[in-house]
Amino acid sequence: VDAREDASPEVPWPAGRLGQQLRFLVEVDRLKGVQRMTRLADGSRLENAAEHSWHLTLIALFLAEHAACPVDLGRVWGMLAVHDLVEIDAGDTFLYDQKGRGTKGAREQAAADRIFGLLPADQAASLHELWSEFDAGQTAEARFANGVDRLAPVLLNFLNRCEIHRQHGIPAARVLAENSIIGEAVPALKDFVKELMAAAVERGWLEND
Amino acid sequence: VDAREDASPEVPWPAGRLGQQLRFLVEVDRLKGVQRMTRLADGSRLENAAEHSWHLTLIALFLAEHAACPVDLGRVWGMLAVHDLVEIDAGDTFLYDQKGRGTKGAREQAAADRIFGLLPADQAASLHELWSEFDAGQTAEARFANGVDRLAPVLLNFLNRCEIHRQHGIPAARVLAENSIIGEAVPALKDFVKELMAAAVERGWLEND
Repeated sequence: VDAREDASPEVPWPAGRLGQQLRFLVEVDRLKGVQRMTRLADGSRLENAAEHSWHLTLIALFLAEHAACPVDLGRVWGMLAVHDLVEIDAGDTFLYDQKGRGTKGAREQAAADRIFGLLPADQAASLHELWSEFDAGQTAEARFANGVDRLAPVLLNFLNRCEIHRQHGIPAARVLAENSIIGEAVPALKDFVKELMAAAVERGWLEND
Repeated sequence: VDAREDASPEVPWPAGRLGQQLRFLVEVDRLKGVQRMTRLADGSRLENAAEHSWHLTLIALFLAEHAACPVDLGRVWGMLAVHDLVEIDAGDTFLYDQKGRGTKGAREQAAADRIFGLLPADQAASLHELWSEFDAGQTAEARFANGVDRLAPVLLNFLNRCEIHRQHGIPAARVLAENSIIGEAVPALKDFVKELMAAAVERGWLEND
């Protein structure tokens, strides 16, 4: 048994289904310790994947009216709540890390098998379905959720004078190219993201390309 | 103008409704900096109100089947996503802090007026409605959401050997009394919470009463 699967042996867990669910819900607490490559808006520290996931649910709630297609917000929220769970094992893969992105699929699939497998089989299957829908990005809800997931770091990085992008030598044109899904998911944001990048170049924070 | 309402004057915000929404969504990033009186499951640090809100959405997703009454999960998620926003101004009020609880209503109402007021009026009204529904705890969804909100810290505190309760001299009987809503919202958890507290007393972590 992997020690991580039962980090709290002293808990008088209920038997059966409820016990499985509660152990899973304690296991996923570890997402609060997964660091992302984005600083908080106030620059005080890097954000973690759990608080990021919460932020996305709020962004989705208040920007859903601008989605390219009407979306079922409940489905969007489900995807956003679970989309980063695999990072508990696989870690956060920086969008601009080509090497990391090459192995991301396999690492995250292994993580999904272990983490989702802690749940009762029917809930594990539902969770896998939500995560796969997000990952495939084909449905209206998944496209919107992916757009929201990209908007948050672009905005937070700008508020930090694009420090993370600059440190990694990522030019404005690449930020735009890698995040084109924002404007596809939420057309009203297309010009905004372009203007953010133009401002970043004008202020000398980023190269153009 | 309160400096906190425009902490990022350099952003080329879009005009109108979208600009208001984006400013609000940056403002609420501050919830990631609001500390709670609960340590993470691994004990490494205190959790913040944003990652806590995320954790609750997952708990709700996987325990909804045990709710005392059938619940509309979308409504529950909406409440959980926004229930702590007022803490950006009002701070987290410890459940066992009688004095703080006496002033909580007024402090949180003022916070709601300022923070929700950053949104377009129709969205501010929807948000106020969701938050008030949670706070009143009368609907099936609000009762379930409140139960979930109480379960998380009871479980996380137990995993930390009830350190926070012990430091504040809170006996097991008081934890049970203040959290009776957990068993009312999710009957299957009633015995579990009792057993947690019995174990905490047996192990010498908490006094009985």
